[in-house]
This record gives sequence, structure tokens and C-alpha cells, in this order.
Amino acid sequence: MAKVAIMGFGTVGSGVAEVLAGNAASIEKKAGEPVEVKYILDLREFPDSPFADKIVHDFSVIENDPEVSVVAECIGGARIAREYTARALKAGKSVVTSNKEVVAECGDEFLEIAREKNVNYLFEASVGGGIPILRPLTSCLAANEITEIFGILNGTTNYILTKMIKEGLSFDTALRQAQEKGYAEADPTADIEGHDACRKICILASLAFGRHVYPRQVPTTGITGVTSGDVALAHAAGKRIKLLGRTLRLDDGKIIAYVAPHLIDDGEQLAGVEDVFNGIVVRGNAIGDVMFYGRGAGKLPTASAVAGDIIDAVKHRQERRTGMEWLPGGDEIMGDDQDLPMRWYVRVSGGFAEGRPDSAANLLGGVTLINVPEREDCAGMITKNAMSRRELDRRLAETGTEALSIFPVLD
Amino acid sequence: MAKVAIMGFGTVGSGVAEVLAGNAASIEKKAGEPVEVKYILDLREFPDSPFADKIVHDFSVIENDPEVSVVAECIGGARIAREYTARALKAGKSVVTSNKEVVAECGDEFLEIAREKNVNYLFEASVGGGIPILRPLTSCLAANEITEIFGILNGTTNYILTKMIKEGLSFDTALRQAQEKGYAEADPTADIEGHDACRKICILASLAFGRHVYPRQVPTTGITGVTSGDVALAHAAGKRIKLLGRTLRLDDGKIIAYVAPHLIDDGEQLAGVEDVFNGIVVRGNAIGDVMFYGRGAGKLPTASAVAGDIIDAVKHRQERRTGMEWLPGGDEIMGDDQDLPMRWYVRVSGGFAEGRPDSAANLLGGVTLINVPEREDCAGMITKNAMSRRELDRRLAETGTEALSIFPVLD
Repeated sequence: MAKVAIMGFGTVGSGVAEVLAGNAASIEKKAGEPVEVKYILDLREFPDSPFADKIVHDFSVIENDPEVSVVAECIGGARIAREYTARALKAGKSVVTSNKEVVAECGDEFLEIAREKNVNYLFEASVGGGIPILRPLTSCLAANEITEIFGILNGTTNYILTKMIKEGLSFDTALRQAQEKGYAEADPTADIEGHDACRKICILASLAFGRHVYPRQVPTTGITGVTSGDVALAHAAGKRIKLLGRTLRLDDGKIIAYVAPHLIDDGEQLAGVEDVFNGIVVRGNAIGDVMFYGRGAGKLPTASAVAGDIIDAVKHRQERRTGMEWLPGGDEIMGDDQDLPMRWYVRVSGGFAEGRPDSAANLLGGVTLINVPEREDCAGMITKNAMSRRELDRRLAETGTEALSIFPVLD
Repeated sequence: MAKVAIMGFGTVGSGVAEVLAGNAASIEKKAGEPVEVKYILDLREFPDSPFADKIVHDFSVIENDPEVSVVAECIGGARIAREYTARALKAGKSVVTSNKEVVAECGDEFLEIAREKNVNYLFEASVGGGIPILRPLTSCLAANEITEIFGILNGTTNYILTKMIKEGLSFDTALRQAQEKGYAEADPTADIEGHDACRKICILASLAFGRHVYPRQVPTTGITGVTSGDVALAHAAGKRIKLLGRTLRLDDGKIIAYVAPHLIDDGEQLAGVEDVFNGIVVRGNAIGDVMFYGRGAGKLPTASAVAGDIIDAVKHRQERRTGMEWLPGGDEIMGDDQDLPMRWYVRVSGGFAEGRPDSAANLLGGVTLINVPEREDCAGMITKNAMSRRELDRRLAETGTEALSIFPVLD
């Protein structure tokens, strides 16, 4: 019998309790022994919950109970979660979590304590909710050199962009609808400014390349600057705007990671990832491109991924699981995304009447102009050649072109 | 230092040797020790190969060498592969393979020997080539009750159907093009008759539901009966024809598995899986739908999945890996797909002038008629209600409707 504790009885925490109870028989079979929730840590009381008798308010009860071998951290944030995770690991318990913020900020610290204490720190649910991605990356794809990962990592922004694309809504209206549906929070900053996607690409980059990539090292642009004009111009060019997190390793071994809206071709598999769904493409030197697709959030999908980690931790109580880990990072391992050659979409105000785009086009080595008849207020272009952002900015300045939006094109 | 043997030096076997050599440094890191190919078993000599000095012709060299801990079976077929796999496992070696035929036919036997001998039998590459699917199914999704799996499991037939859909080619022309491109073999039977997809859905069903499902238990319809008329009618109905393998567990615990062309909605993620790509949807009671997408075949993708299994087997030399296994099957665990309620697409000859479809429509509880102006030679309908195939056939017979094609609709 394995005893586990759940910290935080909110959406994910209560989902974990429900999944462990509801699928108990098959979980016992897979874990090799029954898995029982012994404690649920929360500040609140839940007198009407079927789990009311498990509620405790003092973390040290869990910390000091040697019977508890696995702790599921479902608190969220990077303050209390950080302290309790470190203490639980130091007390010789495995910790599993869906908390991308704390993994992205201080995963390397926890992985080091876990190594010292010969326990596991697992976080499959922190990226892609219930979509299996981290474990396949380290096990099934182990024989590949991973060269690049990119994907739609945040369901809220993908829902907003889908509404803008399919129904022609403005950003503000689409955001309001997302809030009404419960897909966006009252304070939507973490989603729409790209912070959530940033944390996830940090975790993917760290796992793929073996060194911690911290959020502060990842230039992040959200979707607040995406206008209905951008959506219309992208459509006219046979493309769609999607917020992507992207990480790749350069030939010199340096890692680049960033988050930005991209234009991607209508025919691409990622373009068909709509609403709150996530899609993550992993590129390996042997496998080529593999995509993982599903709901990237939601109570039960996320809880089932946390519960999957609990099963794994229970199975590996004797022998530590290896592979899902990395070493501390450093600024010397990071490349500069401003130097990365890409093709670019540029939106300018008004039409192309003033001749500026022609000179811009020449200087940019050729562009495809985009006009939308019903949108006289804006016009755009896509460079034919790849160039660094630094180079693009220089050339735009030379031609006196005022760019209203600049987004990379995924080729 | 782990020593491995590769049996069969064809496309996959030589790919495995290349991946192990080419990614040696990162593989050593992931396996925890260097992984070296000691023997390659083949009937032929390969004097110009960089691996020429590893070639042996006698299986007993591998069988009797205690230094060899992992054997990659890349022979194919279910005869020699079967004998050598059993003997290698009995000799205490772990065996990994991409050979779906032998896994689908006698995986349960091998898994039992592996349990007895405390070694591993792994076959990630047998489904979806390099796409991670079997391991995520048993680890990341472990906290789910898997209720259903369906997908495009065969790249050759998907290429042929894509050509028929996108370019209006006939089946014969599309098949010839697939053969010219090397996507279809000179004898394409295993692909176009659905046998390959059948083997893969057997493996998925066995793993998801824990009991072996054998190919002989899986009703299989390939794509040789799909005409350009079917493609045109599906298009007119906003759908596409895709060959799917499908397995699900009924409420009474019985397993249904079958292979057949399906009509699926244009907007579905699976509809966008084109050319030689595979897409596999796993439905769990907590996660909902998750899709895995990528190249389902090809030398390096498949070889990298085999090499991933080699790494896993090396890591688990002391303690056996659990989870990727099942028990023997039996006819008593199988349900009858003829009883499964589905909506149906039916193609009839000529138009609907003769009044027959009206009476058919009434008897079928309502149908959506499909006409394609430029195809006067055929007409079709899709039933509005779900019914079993048995029921459909009875009602069609009652109305004297001669059906030229009958395919289920994926809802």
C-alpha cells in the first residue's frame, strides 16, 4: 500500500483525489500496489467533501510522516510551493506536480535534491496538461538528438486567436468571451502576455537540451499586439497567427528559446490546432517531426497526468527513475534569438501607395505584398528571404518603414 | 558497456546500427553506459559496410554469448523471427523489435517468457514507426481508463487515399504512384487489404485492455473497394475517407477491434493527417482525446524507436520494466463489431430517381442524401441515426437497396 499526500485542494488537487479514487482498481494494477491518499493539505476546511477526513492544515504532518512516500504539489505559484517541495524532497519523499511556474523557475534545485535523496521529482502535467510529452521526449525519443521543439502551449491564447480568426472578433471581444467561458482568468496577464507559454518552453528546452533554461532568459511576446488586421492579412497570405513557444539548439551548441506570435501555413498540422487545444512538435535527427495533440488544460486531464506521475513514483520507490532531469543553466549556454534567421511578416499602416514598401522590398531582398480589399487601413508583407531580427530592424529603419506588427513566419 | 546484437541487416536493422553509432554520445548518457553493437546477424555478407566485422551468420553465436544483453530483432515476418525471439529471451536476453507481425501474432508468448526470465520484450516501433505511442499509453496515461483508440495506422494506404482525395486519382493510379515512390511494395497486399493496420490495432488493443487480441479476431476491410465515386461523395458531405483501425471496450468489458475505411469530418484533426503520416487518437476517461502524429514508417524514424527500446532495456537490466505487457487472449473476451451502433455511409448506383432511397430513408430512420452533379453514376446517403451493421443490412435488404459501398462514419 502506497500512501500519498496532496498539497492544495483546488481544481487540480481535487481532480487528483477523484482520479485516484475513481480509477483505483486499474491504478493498483499499474502501480503494483494500492495507492491511497492519506492527507490533503489546505488552509480551508471541506466538511462536505468525501475527502473531508483527509484534510490537514499543517505541512509538517506530511513532512514528518514516514509512511507518506509521494507528495502531489497542487498549490501553484512559486512561493509556498517552492518551500514545501524542497522540504518534502529533503524528507525523502518523491514529489510530483503540474505547477509549471515552480518547475520553470527552480526545477534544477529540486532535481538536485531528488538526486541526493534518491527520490523522484516528476512534472509531466506541467506541459500540455494531460498530453503525454515530457516522458516520451526522454524515453521513446531517447535515441534521437532533439534539434527543435515548437508548439501551441497555451490554450487560452489559442482560444482567443481562434475566435479572432474564425469569427473576426477583436482581441478585446475574444478575450471577454474566453473569460465568460472560464478559459481565461479575471487577470489574464499570465496567459495573454505569454508568461505561461514561456514557462512551458523553458521546461521543454531544459529537458531536451539537459541544462536549465530560466524564464528570465526567454524573450516573450504575447498576443496583446495581434490585431484583426494582422489576422486578415495572414489569412490573405494563406496563413494563420498562432502563439508559439519555440526552442532549438544551434550548431555551436547554444540554446535559443522564445515565445512569439508566428504566421504558420494553413496546411500545417499545427494550423489545425484550434480552440483550447495544444499541439507540440518535436523534431529529432532520426524521427523527423512528431506532434502531440490534446487538451492542454482542464481539471481531469491535468489531474490524470499528475496521477500518472504518482504511479510512476510508486513503481520507482526502490530504484530512482532517471532521464527526466537536467543540470543547472547559465547565461553562457544561451544564444541570442535576435540573430536567428527567419522570414518575417511586417504590417504597415495604410496601403502601399507611398512607395515605401517598394524601397523596403528592395532592401529586404524581395517581399510578398499582402493586401486585403476590405481592410484599406492596413497592408502587410512577408520577406522572401530569411534574415535576423536585428537585420530586419536595420533595413526597415533604412527605408523609413514604420512597422505596426512584426511576427516571424514558421517555415 | 552494454553489448547488443542486431538480427537482420535490412532497412530497419542497418538504421538501428546507424542511429546507435551516430548518436552514441547522447545514447551513452541516457542509457548510463556505452551501448555497442557486438554482432549483426544476416545471411548475407556486407564487405563494404562499416559494420562488416560485426556480421555473423549463425544465431547460436548470439544466443550463447552471455555478454550480449539486448537483441534487436529486425528480421520481419513471423517465422524465423518467432523462433529466434523465443530463444533469445530464453537465453536471458532482452529483445526489442519493430516487427508488428510477430508481436500481433505471438506477443503474449514472448511476454510470458520475458516474465519468467526476468528480461524485457519491448516493441515501441511496431506501431506508428518512430511516433511514441505504446510507452505513453502505459505510463503517462496510466491513471486513465482507456476507453477507445482509433487512428490512421498505415502510411501507404493513407498516401493512396490522399492522392485519390486531393488529385482525383483512381485507386489503381494512386497505388502505382505509391509503388513508384517506394511507399508501397511490389506486392502491396499487406497494406491495401488492411493486414498491416490490423496488426497494429491488435497491439494497441492488447496493451490498452490487458489481454491479447489476435489478428484472426479482427474483421479487416482494406481500401481496394474505395472508389473515386466514394471519395467524391464523401467530399460533398464535408468528409474524407480514411482507413482506420479502431478498438474500444464495451460496457460489459468485451473488446471490439476492427479495420475499415471510415468517413470522418473535414474539421477533425485526423482528417488533416495526409500522405504517409500516421495519426493515432487515444481516448481516456480523464484525459479525453489525445492525438499522436508523425511519420509512421521509414528507416530512421523506425530505427530510432528501436534504439529507444534498446536504451530502455539497457537501463532496466537489473530490474524488469513493467507495464508494457498483457495476458493471453481468448474468443470469450471479444465483442461482435456487427452489433456496434454507428452511423453509415452507403453508396448506391445511379441517382435517386427510382424512389428507392426514399423508402430506404424511411426505413433507416432518416438519411442525408448526397449527390455530386458531375458524378451521375453514383449517389450516396448517410444515416442520421446510429444502428448496428446487422440492422443496416437488414433494412437495406427490406427496401431492396443495392449498396455498392458501405463504410462507417466516425462520430
